Amino acid sequence: MAAEIVNPRSDSATDNQAGTESAPDEPFDPAFALHRGGKMAIVATVPVRDKDDLSLAYTPGVAKVCSAIAERPELVHDYTWKSQVVAVVTDGTAVLGLGDIGPEASLPVMEGKAILFKQFGGVDAVPLALATTDTDEIIDTVVRLAPSFGGVNLEDISAPRCFEIERRLQERLDIPVFHDDQHGTAVVTLAALRNAAKLTKRELGDLRAVISGAGAAGVAIAKFLLEAGIGDVAVADRKGVVSRDRDDLTDVKRELAEITNRAGLSGTLESALAGADVFIGVSGGTVPEPAVASMAPDAFVFAMANPNPEVHPDIAHQYASVVATGRSDYPNQINNVLAFPGIFAGALQVRASRITEGMKIAAANALADVVGEELAADYVIPSPFDERVAPAVTAAVAAAARSEGVARR
Amino acid sequence: MAAEIVNPRSDSATDNQAGTESAPDEPFDPAFALHRGGKMAIVATVPVRDKDDLSLAYTPGVAKVCSAIAERPELVHDYTWKSQVVAVVTDGTAVLGLGDIGPEASLPVMEGKAILFKQFGGVDAVPLALATTDTDEIIDTVVRLAPSFGGVNLEDISAPRCFEIERRLQERLDIPVFHDDQHGTAVVTLAALRNAAKLTKRELGDLRAVISGAGAAGVAIAKFLLEAGIGDVAVADRKGVVSRDRDDLTDVKRELAEITNRAGLSGTLESALAGADVFIGVSGGTVPEPAVASMAPDAFVFAMANPNPEVHPDIAHQYASVVATGRSDYPNQINNVLAFPGIFAGALQVRASRITEGMKIAAANALADVVGEELAADYVIPSPFDERVAPAVTAAVAAAARSEGVARR
Repeated sequence: MAAEIVNPRSDSATDNQAGTESAPDEPFDPAFALHRGGKMAIVATVPVRDKDDLSLAYTPGVAKVCSAIAERPELVHDYTWKSQVVAVVTDGTAVLGLGDIGPEASLPVMEGKAILFKQFGGVDAVPLALATTDTDEIIDTVVRLAPSFGGVNLEDISAPRCFEIERRLQERLDIPVFHDDQHGTAVVTLAALRNAAKLTKRELGDLRAVISGAGAAGVAIAKFLLEAGIGDVAVADRKGVVSRDRDDLTDVKRELAEITNRAGLSGTLESALAGADVFIGVSGGTVPEPAVASMAPDAFVFAMANPNPEVHPDIAHQYASVVATGRSDYPNQINNVLAFPGIFAGALQVRASRITEGMKIAAANALADVVGEELAADYVIPSPFDERVAPAVTAAVAAAARSEGVARR
Repeated sequence: MAAEIVNPRSDSATDNQAGTESAPDEPFDPAFALHRGGKMAIVATVPVRDKDDLSLAYTPGVAKVCSAIAERPELVHDYTWKSQVVAVVTDGTAVLGLGDIGPEASLPVMEGKAILFKQFGGVDAVPLALATTDTDEIIDTVVRLAPSFGGVNLEDISAPRCFEIERRLQERLDIPVFHDDQHGTAVVTLAALRNAAKLTKRELGDLRAVISGAGAAGVAIAKFLLEAGIGDVAVADRKGVVSRDRDDLTDVKRELAEITNRAGLSGTLESALAGADVFIGVSGGTVPEPAVASMAPDAFVFAMANPNPEVHPDIAHQYASVVATGRSDYPNQINNVLAFPGIFAGALQVRASRITEGMKIAAANALADVVGEELAADYVIPSPFDERVAPAVTAAVAAAARSEGVARR
């Protein structure tokens, strides 16, 4: 996994990167220095050194390969990089905590995502930041791009458009379409929750969770925890608990009100936390200490907002038995990079036509199992740099794809 | 330039390429073996080995870079790979000599193009084979993709749509849009023609050329030779010379009839060749020997159809002073790879907003000049593997972009 980093630009005769040159007004910051010239490159994986090489990799040799694919379309998976490469697609509307900053400004995040795909999953990924925020246009564009890719990772597209875009693309395409802000977060959260329950000798079905945030991550986590068998889950947006008696709900939240909140809670997030077993923060904002104190004994606090968790870990530890955050400088980091590289690697390996709920559950279980016997309150989820993670997730997802009948080899 | 070939897949823990495994019914052919798993990969050019690396290349460090680009959009060129990467866009309608084989079957050619971009120009390129052949849809798709790319190389799109697609994209985008089947071929042809004229002590203005083929390459070569000052050029399609008195012409050919054929020829290709100085074949088909024999003394025969030149070189040599083909096993190969890598590398280096006629002329001159004092009948154009070519073309194109006012740095 930890493949050697190569910089194929360094010995190129036509290198147009001036590594030592500084842009005017460049802020003094190592992040800017590192980003100069971008973070990724293409390399050839076959030789192109002489006439004979060229006659195989390009004309005339390539024509035979093209003709074979024209006759038997499934051969595109064997003889091109299609089944190795994922499109990382955004419209730049919900980038990190920065919001709608547009496609160009989102590119550093998409490149970052692409190199994480490679480094952690061995999956090639191409950043595609689109100059449109129109739902239909985004869908049509991705459909037209699909022949060149083995999968589509949607990224940083704002809610509620992200839900419709993902759903309609899944209907139209025969390759996996996966909105990582939703499902990646949900998979890692479930893995941590499973281990926290195991540690405190409870079943998922015994737990009542409250999620702060009804955006992409909050909605996906709620649905996924229900899928996995959680006892109850309530989701709160800025106006309080999403419940059937509210008349201000979007379509997505109305659907959420139907399937969540079996306890029939209403009112504020704080009031919903009284007696709750699990807090899951994917909202930003701050939860007052008394509300945390009102949770059930042995509670779990997963305060995932970055850089400022909804509950500071020092406060959370006073009331909760397991604390997780989105930050790398505290234990139990809920980090999507634990999930998406292996999920796509597994799906691509068996040429899955989509990523099913069963494949995501398998990914969460595999991720939880990596912790194994070392399970402890400050170790319910592996480190992103644990080299066992991606192979375990990959294998579990590939096996699940086969057993669910969506694998094509 | 001849950078070491790296295969970053080889040590990936989640490698899904089975190098030794053979697909069922795989034809026994080294081209198929070489194409297995595709010909390219993505690599990270920055380290992602530990928490500190990740905090610079991804969150939280990346957020500062995104914010800087949101404030000053031109910084996208400094801090992403945008100015390094070209989209290789096709709809699969005119692939090699195979015709309309669709996007998937065209992918091996697009990957081949991408690795030539890298190997010869140090330019990253991403193959994008689109699932549409509709002119408006192709244009809209490419416009939406433009934020992520420094340039667009259109490839293997059938005439006459290729002309409109290129023109309208050039109008809408502020990055270079270049249909290589047109202009790449035209640049290399002009370079060879300049050297052939020099060898036989003639000026371009003294020459009358006949082009067989009025598709993408034929139309572009005709226009470009006129731009460069050729004496006269006539283009023949399957029905004969394109002339004002024909009533069966498409818009593109009607425009061609207005600007070419000053001699007012009509009738067959063969009749037009009588007394002509230059034959340029980009059509396939065969020119009968008597027509070649009827050309002017010291004629040039550039029979570029692949794999079967319109005039066999052995026959051409009986009547012509300079013979060129599209084949690598004869001298004077007219190969686009001599032009497009350097043209894009030069344009990207100075962040050109487009590729002007002057930049293409500069590329042709630089290419011709590489031959220098060694000029001979069997050496009017350099070898594709001559390492002087790409740097010379790159430098000439960058300088021309500056002097034409389309450079942005």
